[in-house]
Amino acid sequence: MRERTETTAGTIPEQSKAWQELEQIVASGDVDAVHNFLKELPPGEDARVMARLSHSEQQNILGLLDHENAARLMESLPELQAGQLLSALQPEQAAHIVDEMQSDEQVDLLHQLSEVQTEAILQEMSPEEAENVRFLSQYNDLSAGGLMITELLSFEESLSVDDVVSDLRKNAEKYAAYNVQYSYVIDIEHRLIGVLRLRDLLLAPPQRMISEMMIQNPTSVPVSTSLQDLQHFFDSHPLYGLPVIDDDQKLVGVVRRDDVEKAGEEQAGRTFLRFAGIMGGEELRSLSLKIRSARRLSWLSINIVLNIIAASIIAMYEETLSSVIALAVFLPIVSDMSGCSGNQSIAVSTRELVLGVIRPRDWFYVFRKEFALGLLNGLALGLLLGFVAWLWKGNPYLGLVIGGALAVNTLLAVCLGAVIPLVLKGFKLDPALVSGPILTTLTDMCGFFLVLSFAQAMLPWLI
Amino acid sequence: MRERTETTAGTIPEQSKAWQELEQIVASGDVDAVHNFLKELPPGEDARVMARLSHSEQQNILGLLDHENAARLMESLPELQAGQLLSALQPEQAAHIVDEMQSDEQVDLLHQLSEVQTEAILQEMSPEEAENVRFLSQYNDLSAGGLMITELLSFEESLSVDDVVSDLRKNAEKYAAYNVQYSYVIDIEHRLIGVLRLRDLLLAPPQRMISEMMIQNPTSVPVSTSLQDLQHFFDSHPLYGLPVIDDDQKLVGVVRRDDVEKAGEEQAGRTFLRFAGIMGGEELRSLSLKIRSARRLSWLSINIVLNIIAASIIAMYEETLSSVIALAVFLPIVSDMSGCSGNQSIAVSTRELVLGVIRPRDWFYVFRKEFALGLLNGLALGLLLGFVAWLWKGNPYLGLVIGGALAVNTLLAVCLGAVIPLVLKGFKLDPALVSGPILTTLTDMCGFFLVLSFAQAMLPWLI
Repeated sequence: MRERTETTAGTIPEQSKAWQELEQIVASGDVDAVHNFLKELPPGEDARVMARLSHSEQQNILGLLDHENAARLMESLPELQAGQLLSALQPEQAAHIVDEMQSDEQVDLLHQLSEVQTEAILQEMSPEEAENVRFLSQYNDLSAGGLMITELLSFEESLSVDDVVSDLRKNAEKYAAYNVQYSYVIDIEHRLIGVLRLRDLLLAPPQRMISEMMIQNPTSVPVSTSLQDLQHFFDSHPLYGLPVIDDDQKLVGVVRRDDVEKAGEEQAGRTFLRFAGIMGGEELRSLSLKIRSARRLSWLSINIVLNIIAASIIAMYEETLSSVIALAVFLPIVSDMSGCSGNQSIAVSTRELVLGVIRPRDWFYVFRKEFALGLLNGLALGLLLGFVAWLWKGNPYLGLVIGGALAVNTLLAVCLGAVIPLVLKGFKLDPALVSGPILTTLTDMCGFFLVLSFAQAMLPWLI
Repeated sequence: MRERTETTAGTIPEQSKAWQELEQIVASGDVDAVHNFLKELPPGEDARVMARLSHSEQQNILGLLDHENAARLMESLPELQAGQLLSALQPEQAAHIVDEMQSDEQVDLLHQLSEVQTEAILQEMSPEEAENVRFLSQYNDLSAGGLMITELLSFEESLSVDDVVSDLRKNAEKYAAYNVQYSYVIDIEHRLIGVLRLRDLLLAPPQRMISEMMIQNPTSVPVSTSLQDLQHFFDSHPLYGLPVIDDDQKLVGVVRRDDVEKAGEEQAGRTFLRFAGIMGGEELRSLSLKIRSARRLSWLSINIVLNIIAASIIAMYEETLSSVIALAVFLPIVSDMSGCSGNQSIAVSTRELVLGVIRPRDWFYVFRKEFALGLLNGLALGLLLGFVAWLWKGNPYLGLVIGGALAVNTLLAVCLGAVIPLVLKGFKLDPALVSGPILTTLTDMCGFFLVLSFAQAMLPWLI
């Protein structure tokens, strides 16, 4: 039974030094005290408290808890943090804890580890659970196969209500953890042919055949169905779960609404982080400095090369620049502002792609929409900055050069920012991670070029 | 009955011109054809197809569908899009459609409209539903009160199993839409005192009192519980729903796991958009150009002012700059790269805040963690760019100035980026929207100042 009925929520005491308290309890080695302490923590505080402890203290805690409670603790931590914890354990201890998790959580957690570590843990797990993990691991994380759980109730069509009810009674404890309201009816080839509501079962005469009372032709999805399609499905269908079938139409699992919603949330969080240049879309400060620095640097070092390439445009106009040194003040403004305008477009396109409101082939529709907006915002920003430049140096031509360059570059940035994510998506690249650097390189280059070539053309009026 | 069993998912035909097909069907005014067309669309395609139609065509479609199907269509669209559609309808038609939705969706949708529009629709809705919407509207969207539904089963403790079962039979149709597995037991004051599993009810003797078989002291949360606390709660408790109580301990609703997960996903998407400078955290290209331009400009115009302020530092060093014009090439690089490094820190802090791994009061822990990383990455990037500068002009002192400035500014950007979101959150401001502009203004100013003041100090060796 995984249901709890204690009143734990709603009481969130001051826990600023909770981790210090836990440190002391762990040091004392009192099993019950550790268990009670974790149970009394407000929801979510466990991740924060665990993050503060040293690796050896974290391992001690897991050693003190029984496997079931250790598994619950793991499940409540962010996956990355749980993965770190698990990788520090002996394979045998890790295996016992993973054995107690639900199939989808097992796979997600083991994905955080290296292949060698995963294999070592699988060797020590119960053979049944390990086989199941291997089976699920073949599917993409963000597909029905990767999101489904294999804990489901299925019965062959030849059974009667009585057969099913006695099976339910016999395995009541095992099934309770499944938390299901549906069971599935399969034919002799294990193909899905119907759905049975458990509440209907309880009201039906015992001798009735389940094939007579099942809902026929149930909705199902192939293992390859994408997260996005699943999200849309659950948006328009008020169901809690959806059976998943393999290429031979065999029933292999159930994908549940809340797992789909949760995966969507995690994906949105990762999109945000990748957009800001966090490779892999996840970083926690409890990771080692070496890993964190290396991941961030790998993105930054590509960016700095792109930045140098873009700035080399400025080097080509050194003469113009020395004649009108005021231009140097405006170069970073034009490049920054175009970057901002372009990023807004990238963000809206990325979001619309996730929501499914646009697809890569809609690029021309998106371009038309953004062209009008780019024109409007380009004019507004160009006028503003041009006016500032004019006022500052008292030279209307400087205003014209700067304002004109910003206006044109904003239009360009807005259109590029809108279309780049669609093109990348079309080529199966990650729009969130790659769009930003491509955009800023292009808009920086164009921005510098526009300011400096306009200035060169109008040089007589600028000096 | 809101359950469907047709096999709709899994078959996603090419729909590139689906909206043109729909246009024709709508023009023909064939109700069944519209209904069938929408039913046959792959999940998620409806939002995309609807976005392409003109406002009047969209209204025609809603007019052709019955209220129930129009409500289902609305629920499957992104909220912003559904809100636009609704606001274009006559209040009476809108009211009939909203009447068919679940309580939490009603409130979310009406929040998209102006107060005047909302009031007009509420006037036309069934009085019971309207009163319920008004009741739910008092709560914050991202709290248990705002996320809960009021469709729940509750029974007074004085009832017997037989009383409850006959009520369930009598209202079977109404309750089917609730999709519940639990009912709640309340005392005469409407205070929550127990939970009743429906399946237990079906196996119990009819004369037994429900107060004898209920689970006592059920977990519940106050209406003010935050989305984050609810997420943490569901992470560590395998329950589908959680009763919500008001200040007088009265049972007022149920917050469901999937609604919490969904709200989390929407919030993560909005965080991403706000981070990129989309005010309000939502924009769809189907919104009017005026609204889209104004929203984006309001953020950009603040940014341009901050940019001008930062760049004014450059103006103060025009003399140094004219002596060593090569510096102008590196100013945008230093400012861009520091912005990138700082944004990585902002993103990680924002994400850790959402995950609950850190709280605002942890700023010193975060600062220490980032200081080490900033030092490491600052050195690496500074060495790289310094080396490039040295090689380019053959002057090691130029390398020292540029590399030194980038190293110091990266350290600063990384630390500021990490701490700013926590400080903003501590002051109840929105970290995603405000952190970026504050950070880049500060790091631009410091970056320009560092490059130019280092250069001024080393001027004899640079010329």
